[in-house]
Amino acid sequence: MTERSCLSIVLAAGEGTRMKSDRSKVLHEVAGLPMVAHVVRAAAAAGSDRVALVVGRDAETVEAVATPHTANVTTYLQKERLGTAHAVLAAQEAIEEPADDILVLFGDTPLVRPDDLAAARMALSEGAAVAVMGFYTENPFGYGRLIEEDGQLVDIREEKDASFLEKQIQFCNGGLMAIAGEHALELLRGIGNDNAKGEYYLTDIVALARAEGHKVVAREIAFESVLGINNRVELAEAEAIWQRRTRHRMMVDGVTLMQPASVHFSWDTAIGQDTLVEPNVVFGPAVSIGRSVTIRAFSHIEGATVADSAEIGPFARLRPGAELADKAKVGNFCEVKKSRIGEGAKVNHLTYIGDAEIGARSNIGAGTVTCNYDGYAKHRTTIGEDVFVGTHTSLVAPVTIGPGAYVATGSVLTEDVPGDALAIARGRQVNKDGRGKILRERLQAQKQQKS
Amino acid sequence: MTERSCLSIVLAAGEGTRMKSDRSKVLHEVAGLPMVAHVVRAAAAAGSDRVALVVGRDAETVEAVATPHTANVTTYLQKERLGTAHAVLAAQEAIEEPADDILVLFGDTPLVRPDDLAAARMALSEGAAVAVMGFYTENPFGYGRLIEEDGQLVDIREEKDASFLEKQIQFCNGGLMAIAGEHALELLRGIGNDNAKGEYYLTDIVALARAEGHKVVAREIAFESVLGINNRVELAEAEAIWQRRTRHRMMVDGVTLMQPASVHFSWDTAIGQDTLVEPNVVFGPAVSIGRSVTIRAFSHIEGATVADSAEIGPFARLRPGAELADKAKVGNFCEVKKSRIGEGAKVNHLTYIGDAEIGARSNIGAGTVTCNYDGYAKHRTTIGEDVFVGTHTSLVAPVTIGPGAYVATGSVLTEDVPGDALAIARGRQVNKDGRGKILRERLQAQKQQKS
Amino acid sequence: MTERSCLSIVLAAGEGTRMKSDRSKVLHEVAGLPMVAHVVRAAAAAGSDRVALVVGRDAETVEAVATPHTANVTTYLQKERLGTAHAVLAAQEAIEEPADDILVLFGDTPLVRPDDLAAARMALSEGAAVAVMGFYTENPFGYGRLIEEDGQLVDIREEKDASFLEKQIQFCNGGLMAIAGEHALELLRGIGNDNAKGEYYLTDIVALARAEGHKVVAREIAFESVLGINNRVELAEAEAIWQRRTRHRMMVDGVTLMQPASVHFSWDTAIGQDTLVEPNVVFGPAVSIGRSVTIRAFSHIEGATVADSAEIGPFARLRPGAELADKAKVGNFCEVKKSRIGEGAKVNHLTYIGDAEIGARSNIGAGTVTCNYDGYAKHRTTIGEDVFVGTHTSLVAPVTIGPGAYVATGSVLTEDVPGDALAIARGRQVNKDGRGKILRERLQAQKQQKS
Repeated sequence: MTERSCLSIVLAAGEGTRMKSDRSKVLHEVAGLPMVAHVVRAAAAAGSDRVALVVGRDAETVEAVATPHTANVTTYLQKERLGTAHAVLAAQEAIEEPADDILVLFGDTPLVRPDDLAAARMALSEGAAVAVMGFYTENPFGYGRLIEEDGQLVDIREEKDASFLEKQIQFCNGGLMAIAGEHALELLRGIGNDNAKGEYYLTDIVALARAEGHKVVAREIAFESVLGINNRVELAEAEAIWQRRTRHRMMVDGVTLMQPASVHFSWDTAIGQDTLVEPNVVFGPAVSIGRSVTIRAFSHIEGATVADSAEIGPFARLRPGAELADKAKVGNFCEVKKSRIGEGAKVNHLTYIGDAEIGARSNIGAGTVTCNYDGYAKHRTTIGEDVFVGTHTSLVAPVTIGPGAYVATGSVLTEDVPGDALAIARGRQVNKDGRGKILRERLQAQKQQKS
Repeated sequence: MTERSCLSIVLAAGEGTRMKSDRSKVLHEVAGLPMVAHVVRAAAAAGSDRVALVVGRDAETVEAVATPHTANVTTYLQKERLGTAHAVLAAQEAIEEPADDILVLFGDTPLVRPDDLAAARMALSEGAAVAVMGFYTENPFGYGRLIEEDGQLVDIREEKDASFLEKQIQFCNGGLMAIAGEHALELLRGIGNDNAKGEYYLTDIVALARAEGHKVVAREIAFESVLGINNRVELAEAEAIWQRRTRHRMMVDGVTLMQPASVHFSWDTAIGQDTLVEPNVVFGPAVSIGRSVTIRAFSHIEGATVADSAEIGPFARLRPGAELADKAKVGNFCEVKKSRIGEGAKVNHLTYIGDAEIGARSNIGAGTVTCNYDGYAKHRTTIGEDVFVGTHTSLVAPVTIGPGAYVATGSVLTEDVPGDALAIARGRQVNKDGRGKILRERLQAQKQQKS
Repeated sequence: MTERSCLSIVLAAGEGTRMKSDRSKVLHEVAGLPMVAHVVRAAAAAGSDRVALVVGRDAETVEAVATPHTANVTTYLQKERLGTAHAVLAAQEAIEEPADDILVLFGDTPLVRPDDLAAARMALSEGAAVAVMGFYTENPFGYGRLIEEDGQLVDIREEKDASFLEKQIQFCNGGLMAIAGEHALELLRGIGNDNAKGEYYLTDIVALARAEGHKVVAREIAFESVLGINNRVELAEAEAIWQRRTRHRMMVDGVTLMQPASVHFSWDTAIGQDTLVEPNVVFGPAVSIGRSVTIRAFSHIEGATVADSAEIGPFARLRPGAELADKAKVGNFCEVKKSRIGEGAKVNHLTYIGDAEIGARSNIGAGTVTCNYDGYAKHRTTIGEDVFVGTHTSLVAPVTIGPGAYVATGSVLTEDVPGDALAIARGRQVNKDGRGKILRERLQAQKQQKS
């Protein structure tokens, strides 16, 4: 397959009014990735070396979200809505450049899989001029039926034109298509608009290709793979299918999910074997988790890298740039951002670590805060190995604490602390006998006066 | 319809022993609202101008929860349990006041919809004396079958009395009923108790009305609408149905729910278009959310008003009286209560804001606490615009910080701060060289001594 | 039944390679308890007085997790894999000791119920030499069919050997078996390995027992009860079934679960009547909750004891050793570990209480931390009744606060506080007029310089 060149044309100009959104439909996300990017990734994985995006609006944004996922993306604007064949021809310039295979895909079918596309390309490599992707369904009502004879596709029959017998056919047009590059332009241009709506229908390519004596075939694709998204209910369904597929794959690969349905993954979440994920965990994009990690309930992780045997949560939040070394621990009500937590270091309770480096085996007391922001810029905190930071410590960055230092509880550190030093920055305790009682009585009296 | 007067009689006297609860059954909640209040709301929305509640106990509480949802609620005590017709007549006083339509509803069918009731009232306006609400089911076993002839309801046949052919009928008695006011009292009083149990059955009204020459009809209602709740398993099922309906409506209206099944709404939750709700979000009662708001995972919101483009969570809690202006941000492990967060102001980490006002663009550092409670009364904190509050600040209310002021990290503010001033209230830092190491060695020695 | 002695042989030597795990398969957990322990518990509840575990590896760990759940556990190593009958005979020593009934169970069917096993034992007490447990399924393909004649089991027919009619049988071999102790050794030793794989199949005991003139019967068991776990997908399914069963039982017993599917229980969770559990709550092992407790959303509770009418959450974490007295309250972003919270005492916001005792009616301010760890050892904090601890207080343990004392906001307490005293330990506030503005301008300038 690799030696055949391939252009994918992704139709992404649908208005999507039923999304009731200010954003273009194909920019809505499944598993944290815009729908159109899912399609582009599938195309790339199926060996597509060029992608032509046909858009109606938000051209720049659509191109921007697609670009990181494949080489060679070009965007074409479809100015008028005159049918699918017309939409494909908006990318005429791309089609004019030679390609062995041309895939026609839709920006709003985010669950399409590389294998589906590879099967259609295979059909071209075996001599077909057109391969239409179809799905089986027990309730074919309303879909175009794929009429096959002797292993070839002879027509796509719309519901209204189908005979009683044809209506029994459960193999339906999924919309996606592969077209041999050498015939593509001629066939596409040959499609007319002599129909009720005066539109150019891509499905007419079947009859046209056959009339030219070309071989046309149908290839099966899963129903889910062609699930088109038109409103937010369908978007949520696609998300649910994606999550189900991914949870299954994770478990088969050796990750324990205690309550799979309560775990939310992103498109690029990577997790090592024997890692345990408790219920109610959310993975945002760009997360990589090692082996034998324990991720406790109610953890929220995005953009983080976690090494083996680390422990996270419950109620922990790892934000982009969080990096946990082996056996590091981030506990409840802790937030870590753009920081590295060294091997075996512990950040256990009610703590915010931002723009910091914490050395191996250091222990950060409850309620510690790195004051990384002064209202204008962010500054870094550096903590050496084997440091003990007492509870309720404010680390006013930029600040450095040397290895082996000990910071007393409740300190506000504004200056560096040398290694092995004891740092203390707080008021002295005074007990005023009987004054607590007096204060209580006064406050109580004030309250009664007011009410 | 509006010109016809309507009395709704809600039967809410069921013992509910299978709930295994100290509370009256109809007080148990669906979507944060007592079941009986759901029924009263549906009645009011269907144009009912008076509501008579027939209760067995907790009369005051039941009336109190119903009152806010409709005008004109009166409660009647049913002293004995002698059947449904007897229960309806407990409200005889209410029936004696003229009403065009009388609806007989049940306090334990919280999913009934205004449309269902309107359809039954419509039947009365078209000349029926009685309209019985029925549902279709594929498994009618055990339900009373609705026997129709020529568009009229001729009888309700109980399972034990049904012939083989009647048992095939899938249209069943839903219990709810509309009765023409002019005939109601006569018909209800005509119902006898000459049966095995010696009870007065409301279903006997069908035969009675027909015997008087009145027209009796059946009107279809969804099965869910008559789902009666008898134990907590059924309560959870009703809740699940209510949540499913609401999630669907939200998505159709332009709200993105990433994982719909993990979002919990209350009966009055309002959310604007293009707002994104991540997984695992709980909305308590009285929440109003604007457009294009981002609600991140693990947020808990009740009694709060949030303006457009605000950002909440993850792990944020908005309590009653929280008010967020446009583009305000409340981040992880933050709690806001009876406070207004100004436009673009940020409360990002580990903070408690209670009884406070925060001006536009102000930044509240991590670990800030408004000390609003002195053990006896609550006091207010006022923060102006463009204020920077350093981390770990305690704001001992009542206290006011003027616009543009800067509060140093780790301060305990007990006095007001003028605008543009720098406030500082903390101990000075001292580093004691080598003392950290000595302390460590001492602590280690102590530990070894003990063990 | 009680007077009959019973030995349970639990086959737990399966490799479990499809788990893709470093741990032995039967050590993987359902509801927080290793699978093998579930099986051992069911055996004990069905009256088994001895348990023989047949393991392939991790012998010590498997025995350790089983031991707390029944008396008299012995572990036997199965060195070679020569079939199920061979595996049972690994426990020959245990079989040689007299027992009326012998149950053969599997370590990887954690959902087996005591009732299932009791029914099989009952068959032995009624004269059967062997009772095979079978399940009904609409899709029996692939399972061994149980061939019955005149109320006796005459054979277990494998799919490949079954006739067309036998293939219609929906009653299938569940694997579990009860064998009369007096015949067990003779029957088991009689099983040969004259088959394609050269293995000793336990199912051959049926034909053998019948050949000896013994009575052999089949007893029905639910499909779920014999669900074998071979990979993490199946493990998650077993967990889901277990959770579903338990949620149902909880609700029937009078606990309100607002969104049952979002609540995760452990094998030993105990909850009293009229307690409300909001969505998204996780119960770890060893939790006991009283009556009329409110557990709000996003709470994580393990090893805790909670008395009546207490309130927990949202976002609360109770760790092992947390003990809440009547009406105690632990609120958002609070963590309690090895501590007792007295009657009506409140720990409401952003607080860590570890190794502490808090007296009745005391109020712990937001952001309080017990500094229980000095880097080497843990120390205790003792707070009397009616104490008011101001916000942002660090309690450097060991420390004691007497009853009625008042601790000022932002204090670091290193010394004891007498009853009724006022303790204060913090810096004084200084306001520097106009200096906030100057600072802002300087920081802004620095930032511009850098960028």
